[in-house]
Amino acid sequence: MKVSIIGTGLIGGSLAMALKENGFASHVTGVDSNEQNINTALELQLIDEAAELPAAVKSADLIILAIPVNAIQFALPEVLNMMNNGQTVMDMGSTKQLICESVEHHPLRSRFVATHPMWGTEKSGPEAAVHGAFTGRTVVFCEKQKSAPDALQTVKRLYDSIGMTETEMDAKAHDMHVAYVSHVSHLASYALALTVLEKEKEEDAIFLLASGGFESTVRLAKSPASMWVPIFQQNRNYVLDVLNEHIHQLKQLKKMIEMEEYDTLEKLIKQANDIERILK
Amino acid sequence: MKVSIIGTGLIGGSLAMALKENGFASHVTGVDSNEQNINTALELQLIDEAAELPAAVKSADLIILAIPVNAIQFALPEVLNMMNNGQTVMDMGSTKQLICESVEHHPLRSRFVATHPMWGTEKSGPEAAVHGAFTGRTVVFCEKQKSAPDALQTVKRLYDSIGMTETEMDAKAHDMHVAYVSHVSHLASYALALTVLEKEKEEDAIFLLASGGFESTVRLAKSPASMWVPIFQQNRNYVLDVLNEHIHQLKQLKKMIEMEEYDTLEKLIKQANDIERILK
Repeated sequence: MKVSIIGTGLIGGSLAMALKENGFASHVTGVDSNEQNINTALELQLIDEAAELPAAVKSADLIILAIPVNAIQFALPEVLNMMNNGQTVMDMGSTKQLICESVEHHPLRSRFVATHPMWGTEKSGPEAAVHGAFTGRTVVFCEKQKSAPDALQTVKRLYDSIGMTETEMDAKAHDMHVAYVSHVSHLASYALALTVLEKEKEEDAIFLLASGGFESTVRLAKSPASMWVPIFQQNRNYVLDVLNEHIHQLKQLKKMIEMEEYDTLEKLIKQANDIERILK
Repeated sequence: MKVSIIGTGLIGGSLAMALKENGFASHVTGVDSNEQNINTALELQLIDEAAELPAAVKSADLIILAIPVNAIQFALPEVLNMMNNGQTVMDMGSTKQLICESVEHHPLRSRFVATHPMWGTEKSGPEAAVHGAFTGRTVVFCEKQKSAPDALQTVKRLYDSIGMTETEMDAKAHDMHVAYVSHVSHLASYALALTVLEKEKEEDAIFLLASGGFESTVRLAKSPASMWVPIFQQNRNYVLDVLNEHIHQLKQLKKMIEMEEYDTLEKLIKQANDIERILK
């Protein structure tokens, strides 16, 4: 199958690598407005060829959008405009409602499959692409009923080939759940990094004292603004809702320390420990 | 050298394992009020022998306190009471001010070396002990001038033997820096776990959608209350100070999303990204 990947960064690059390795893609064309990205992707042989968007869409059986969610929202209708009924387009964006709405009434809506593979790292660019990305994680499909069976089948085969487990949600539920489970983690991590940078003026102390715990909590704070600002923008309502709750929880912990109510603090921490059971 | 380790959990167990392996300790005696811990430590051969505190203190050249910080604060003077001038005691606690104060006027103060090795995981118990723990991390020494040169030398040799890099701070500065770099991370992670548990009533969704990012941010939320409540208690002032700043930073991010000031949000995220440079 001939595949064109729009966006040859971490996600697009890792997927290209996997699909070439496992034979799903016979040929991968890459598109990227960032010249350095596209050159690196070529050098690393993640893609076979670089092209402009129209040529890449024309030549592919499957077009994959692996760009920031605001860019997907605008590129997707344009890509569908260039497509014919024998082609399929899928996206890999972290939000789904606005993206799905952008093509709701498009005559070729059924050629689009909306997905969100739950994998990523804090890094960016094709040089950050890794082998074995995605494997063992979940991919969420949204609005399956609006996709043509053959288009859906193509995308399912793709995710099968890289070892992902499929689940289904409506676009609204997806955006709510990922706000809770993924987006708030990023905001918490950004805020933590800003806190430490504000309070700890001795950079040497941060470097010396950073233990594994600190590093894992601020790891997400290295994630690029270009990817995450559009996510917070598109998922604004759910993100604000969960952010309010997070601030409330922090205030609660603070109050227990302020009032020296250590028994209640202990209870809250034991409640928090329950996350271990759920993640197991 | 004959070593007695008080507390055979994650920290004490990992240290016992390392000191037996590298030959620093010719014999390790373990003390633990938790019978299950001490039995596991014996079964796993982390320690050569189990004993009660007085016998363990009496028989050792070096006594190591690897128990929660509130327990150190109370056990340390008691241990010094049982010691003679040829023995050394060190602690591995995450706070230093109250612990140092607890023996400030003790006639054998000079036999005590206050340290904090910057290593840990979210797990607990001797079964969580790992090979190669501590290596490559920093250990903070406090109030070195109050320890006898030979006692200091013994403890330095211990940390050298497990590949730690030594640094020095006064107890107050230590507590401030670790509040900023370590303690607030734990509170942020507990609050995040509580947030998700509160908002996301579908446990399946948490399990399915948890990506590497979420898992790394809530990892610390699995840390035991028995260890962390005493830390927050002992380091209350600095912890509250940094927690206030953290809540302020979260509110700032929230405001930018609320007001849809995405350019400012982008600037803040880029500022947060700077943590990468410092941790490198």
